[in-house]
Amino acid sequence: MQIDRSPLARPFPAMPAIAGVTLRVARARYKDWDRADLTFAELAEGTSVAGVFTKSACASSEVELGRQNVAQGAARALIVNAGNSNAFTGYRGREAVEAIMNQVSGALGCPREQVFVSSTGVIGVPLPKDKARAGIAAALEAAPCGWEDAANAIGTTDTFAKGAGASAMIGDTRVELAGIIKGSGMIAPDMATMLGYIFTDANVAPAFLQEALERANAATFSCITVDGDTSTSDTVMVFATGKAGNARIESWDSPGADAFAAALAEVCRNLAHLVVRDGEGAQKFITIRVSGAASDQSARTIGLAIANSPLVKTAIAGEDANWGRVVMAVGKAGEPADRDKLSIAFGGIWTAKNGLPVDGYDEAPVAAHLKGEAIDIAVDLGLGDGRASVWTCDLTHGYIAINADYRS
Amino acid sequence: MQIDRSPLARPFPAMPAIAGVTLRVARARYKDWDRADLTFAELAEGTSVAGVFTKSACASSEVELGRQNVAQGAARALIVNAGNSNAFTGYRGREAVEAIMNQVSGALGCPREQVFVSSTGVIGVPLPKDKARAGIAAALEAAPCGWEDAANAIGTTDTFAKGAGASAMIGDTRVELAGIIKGSGMIAPDMATMLGYIFTDANVAPAFLQEALERANAATFSCITVDGDTSTSDTVMVFATGKAGNARIESWDSPGADAFAAALAEVCRNLAHLVVRDGEGAQKFITIRVSGAASDQSARTIGLAIANSPLVKTAIAGEDANWGRVVMAVGKAGEPADRDKLSIAFGGIWTAKNGLPVDGYDEAPVAAHLKGEAIDIAVDLGLGDGRASVWTCDLTHGYIAINADYRS
Repeated sequence: MQIDRSPLARPFPAMPAIAGVTLRVARARYKDWDRADLTFAELAEGTSVAGVFTKSACASSEVELGRQNVAQGAARALIVNAGNSNAFTGYRGREAVEAIMNQVSGALGCPREQVFVSSTGVIGVPLPKDKARAGIAAALEAAPCGWEDAANAIGTTDTFAKGAGASAMIGDTRVELAGIIKGSGMIAPDMATMLGYIFTDANVAPAFLQEALERANAATFSCITVDGDTSTSDTVMVFATGKAGNARIESWDSPGADAFAAALAEVCRNLAHLVVRDGEGAQKFITIRVSGAASDQSARTIGLAIANSPLVKTAIAGEDANWGRVVMAVGKAGEPADRDKLSIAFGGIWTAKNGLPVDGYDEAPVAAHLKGEAIDIAVDLGLGDGRASVWTCDLTHGYIAINADYRS
Repeated sequence: MQIDRSPLARPFPAMPAIAGVTLRVARARYKDWDRADLTFAELAEGTSVAGVFTKSACASSEVELGRQNVAQGAARALIVNAGNSNAFTGYRGREAVEAIMNQVSGALGCPREQVFVSSTGVIGVPLPKDKARAGIAAALEAAPCGWEDAANAIGTTDTFAKGAGASAMIGDTRVELAGIIKGSGMIAPDMATMLGYIFTDANVAPAFLQEALERANAATFSCITVDGDTSTSDTVMVFATGKAGNARIESWDSPGADAFAAALAEVCRNLAHLVVRDGEGAQKFITIRVSGAASDQSARTIGLAIANSPLVKTAIAGEDANWGRVVMAVGKAGEPADRDKLSIAFGGIWTAKNGLPVDGYDEAPVAAHLKGEAIDIAVDLGLGDGRASVWTCDLTHGYIAINADYRS
């Protein structure tokens, strides 16, 4: 099946090279296709690493080993296989990952714990070791490539290449961040919900890098959903080569720590939004702002209940300001809510306030807003100070078409 | 939009009249339609009542008052309004319900706490009191009708009338049960998930009736889902008129208690299945059997995670034995699971065992099974003795068509 480019797609941004990062791609041919599907990022010695991973109880060996090795804080290489997730493949899947780690650590002369592997694609087929071996050998001899080539090579059902960059000043030193991401379906927020990689030349201690990533993740990747389905392979990692030469960021007290964390959060948010924009079948980009909740966490849970509701998502696809379905989703979220304090707005216009429809509100601007591509839903619980923003897309015939005819 | 009759529809069963129950319907014209939309069940003095209600934090006044009054255990009337759920209508909605209770209790000469009201339909529009008043007046003068007329009158987007009956022997006395139900979308299990009413001539104490209903509900209505969306109005009630003249069932030790509870559970299960069969856009009836879980509750949670996964539901729509998506759903359920002990079967054929694809399993009977109308998915966790069955339908273009063009 030919899947059209998402109508919400964004052009790939210009992003600078990151000193200490060399990208290469190769054709391992994990599927019967003629495209680069193996990505190899070589990282300078001294690169710090941080990562967040799926909470799935059925995570892949790649995730298990990545979670284990990221704790040591150092990385020399990242390999991403596209077309086969190697998930639910038991000991054979684990052997395939370990073979890749051994091959790469041998080639680079580094501990194998500094080689990180991700795989994405169909579940239940062990990654073919011979294809991986030949692909890595080819990548090691390939000419370096740019961000867009790498972003394309990590994609599977993605309809456009996704990247985001930012910069920050640390003292007098300008540092750069560049990130790429893939994801379109099986997207639901639980730590990290797709494959995303951010590279920076900043000099950052691993513990701080991990803390900054977790903080950014909580407000970005963990606040998006396409279909409520959490993947077995989700991974977001940050690699900091230190080549910018700034004074090392060790903690929030280090000069530039806030600026770096803000730039990292900006990249994470932009990447997360791009995944929603490539949501399977998406035609609308929906922002749900929840305020007045009992806590920030409660606001996020309510926002996700709205974002994951098929009735809300189909109403938006139908350009219908059906706030009754938003009420339903708030009610089922299992969080503190008082029907008679609840208010709901579309595009900034309150259609229901304090548990009652707003009599005679002006439907025309609401209808016009719903015809647009970017939809805003605001929900105020009227209970406390908790707030969160959540992003999702609508549920359309395109989602059914893509997912009822995927594997065959 | 014309919605076709579900391909999974069942003919309405023959069900006997229940002594002590008089059914009438009327045209309140809550919507611009020419059909009966107000159902009035008059119940003999001495009728016991039990009920389970939505856990939604935004429940309607009908639910709030019903939950409160069912605790007193006695009922004389049930009124069901179709076309307007009266949910999220604040004090005006409450006034409308109280006006109905007053009118009916006046006509029957009973306490108003013995009048139960349900409403189903669009959210956010106060139930028009004048239409309700005229509809009830008309119903009070109407000729009694049968089960199928009542089942049609309580429906909204339902594509077929749904009923189920059973009988049980209590000592030497045969008692009859007859139930009707409506529901098609906004169906997700959380206590009770649609409007369902079961009538019996058995003589049953309210406390036992409540206990038997809660037990039946846990394994039936609470184990179905269409779209994971929990309604603001869900209600299941049982009315026992006592006219069969059996020795009153007071507890599980009373003669016939088990037989009665079994018959009640059978009616509940059949009604729950009929709701799934009328799931919006449904083309397949899916049974998910989970075994080997840490507990029965854990098994149910895992079953519902599978049943609510849009990726699993679209795979079944596409007649694809995509067990990788089942693995994904197990992994995201948040319950104990060990990837390497997990086994999955379609139509009784194991496609994955102990965390590995079954090499060379016979795909032909699996493919044939998936082309059928009734799909069986079995998941064994390999951890403990917990088990549960959950029922759902597939996710098709029909669901999108129905829900992206509903209110307008």
